[in-house]
Formats: sequence, C-alpha cells, structure tokens
Amino acid sequence: MSKRQAIIPKGWEIYEHLTFAPAVRKGNMLFVSGNDATEIDAETGKLVIKGDIVQQYRTIYEKLKVVLDTVGATFDDVVWTCDYIRSKEGYKGTVAVRREYFGNSFPASTGIVVKELLSRDALVEMDAIAILDK
Amino acid sequence: MSKRQAIIPKGWEIYEHLTFAPAVRKGNMLFVSGNDATEIDAETGKLVIKGDIVQQYRTIYEKLKVVLDTVGATFDDVVWTCDYIRSKEGYKGTVAVRREYFGNSFPASTGIVVKELLSRDALVEMDAIAILDK
Amino acid sequence: MSKRQAIIPKGWEIYEHLTFAPAVRKGNMLFVSGNDATEIDAETGKLVIKGDIVQQYRTIYEKLKVVLDTVGATFDDVVWTCDYIRSKEGYKGTVAVRREYFGNSFPASTGIVVKELLSRDALVEMDAIAILDK
Repeated sequence: MSKRQAIIPKGWEIYEHLTFAPAVRKGNMLFVSGNDATEIDAETGKLVIKGDIVQQYRTIYEKLKVVLDTVGATFDDVVWTCDYIRSKEGYKGTVAVRREYFGNSFPASTGIVVKELLSRDALVEMDAIAILDK
Repeated sequence: MSKRQAIIPKGWEIYEHLTFAPAVRKGNMLFVSGNDATEIDAETGKLVIKGDIVQQYRTIYEKLKVVLDTVGATFDDVVWTCDYIRSKEGYKGTVAVRREYFGNSFPASTGIVVKELLSRDALVEMDAIAILDK
Repeated sequence: MSKRQAIIPKGWEIYEHLTFAPAVRKGNMLFVSGNDATEIDAETGKLVIKGDIVQQYRTIYEKLKVVLDTVGATFDDVVWTCDYIRSKEGYKGTVAVRREYFGNSFPASTGIVVKELLSRDALVEMDAIAILDK
C-alpha cells in the first residue's frame, strides 16, 4: 500500500498553509475535502465567493473537476458526495448541475441542512469520495 | 477495478428520475445514500413518511436491508452509519432498532443534530458504508 | 476479505454496552466513530467533558491516537476527518492541535456547524477514516 498522498492541484498552493489537503489519495481511494465556492478573484487577487446557490454549486463542481483531473480521474469514479446547505432555498436548482457533470449515472449522495458553514458567504459545501481505476 | 454500479432495488424505479443512486457499488465498497423513512403508501400510491422517530428509524433499516439484499450483503458487512436527526427527542429509542438489525456486533457510527432534513416530514435520515466480502 | 472487526481499546469497555463500536476495521479500512471529549474522571469515576473547544479537540485527538495505536496505525494513515462543531467560536485554535498530531501532511477534511451534538457538554465531535498499510 502506498503512503497517503496529498492532492494539491496547480494554482491551489494556498493549501500548503492550511491543515487539510484539498484531497488525499491512498491506494485507489480518493477523499475530497468539503469544498465551497471560494475562488481567487482575477482582478483583486482576493478570495471571494460569488453567486447564488446554483452558481456556487457549479463552481464547486468545477473545482472537483480540477481535483479529479489532477489524479487522472473523472466524475464516473465518484462514488459518494455529501451536500451541506444552509437553507433549502434554491437547492432544487442544483439538480441541473448534477446532471451536467454526472450525465445519466450518479453516485450515492446525502444532503443535509446545517446551522452554518465555515465560510461566511458559502451557501453550499460538498465533499466527495472517489474510487480510482488504477 | 469494475465500474461504478448504481444499485436500484426492485420497486425503487423512482430513483431513475433522481440525480443520486440509492446506493453505489465499486469494487467491494458499497456507499448507501442518506435514506429517510419515505415509502409508497399502499392505498394512495403516494410517497409518505409515517410514525415517530423510532418507527421512522425502523423503516430506514428495512430499506437498508433491501439495498443490502440486492447486492447479496448483510448487516454484518456494514462498517459505518451516520444518523442525522432534527432533535434528540425520542432518539434513545432507536437503540433497540440497532440491536434488532445488528445483533451484538456494531459498525462505527456518528450521530448529529442538523438544522433541517431535506424531506419536511423526516425526523431522521441515515447513510451507510458497507464493505462486501466478494 | 476478513470479517468486520470492532476495535475497542483497553479501558474502553463501556462500549460493550453501546450500539456502535469506537472503530471498525474491515480489510485495510478503519472507520472511527464520531468521538467527543468524554473521558472518565480519575477521581469520581464518572464520565465528564472538560475544557474549551481547543482542549476538547486535543482530547479527541488523544482518543483517536489510542484507537490508531490499538490497530498499529498512525496519524499518517488517516485519510479523512470531519469536525462537527456547535459554533465557530474558538475553532481557529484547533489548527494548532492538527499541526501537533499531523505534522506537515494532512488528511482531507470537512468541518460543519451543527445544531446540536449528542453529548450536552460537547463543543466538538470528530469522526475519521484511515487506510492501514497492512
């Protein structure tokens, strides 16, 4: 069994100062940390969260895609996701995002409404588990 | 490694219209989605959630049994469960249900009180992970 | 594949009366139950939770260390943790505890603010997954 390997995509070097990895691989298991829609603003260089819950959800999926790409995996390898939302308001709209990224075949998933998320502006956060083919 | 396989028990075809599978198998890992006590009412054909938290918990375990049966697994293969409840009221009563289904040997488990569950009438929801023998 | 094995560290016999194991091993996967800072008071023999969120967090990591020791694993084998907190107050202070136990290489992690935890005095609870080398 290989050692635990922190997966830090190119451009995500901010994680080198944090106490969790964006994702971790050991053997063929990939664990992806709870991920909100935080992005680096192209103009100001600051970390920001933009958009309503559906836009944030799409950003999270784009970020998950970057993580999967980094290890040579795809959305077909994702076996589990958990959505953490602050309110059900607008959540139904995220179904379209799931179809867009997963197509017609889906992972197992749970969704819960939490009291708060760690990032003040986050309306949704998601973690995931993937099992890689190789 | 085999591909991700959606596990949809007989009679659960409603899931073909949803964006998550009731459970997913890849290799010998089985991930079971957050499951509440929603059932099809035999008389009206509508989806309903009946009962107090203990009755709902038992329904969830019956539904988990159906999922496990579908892949030829048993409660002995379950390694992890997480209970999501809306209030601690009546939760102690679910211990009897756990003994009923798990016997004397139990999985690892977490239980948390969430702000809300996605189904309005759900008092409890549970997800699970199993590792299959074959 | 070996059977599911409940991991009950020496001195944790109280778990023999509960309906979940502190941790469960199957194959090389280790699932660690949601763990708060409950300890046996050396003077009174009663179960107590002491301290602020950072002290509770350290106690949880000490308890996780005991679980890992029991199966011959280390913090390097932990691939996933989830922190459940009741409030963000003081949570930043737990970063130092993570550095203390994980060093410079971290697992994937999620942290969420829940409505309540099952133990009245708990400010934080954590579960974890480890993948063992042997």
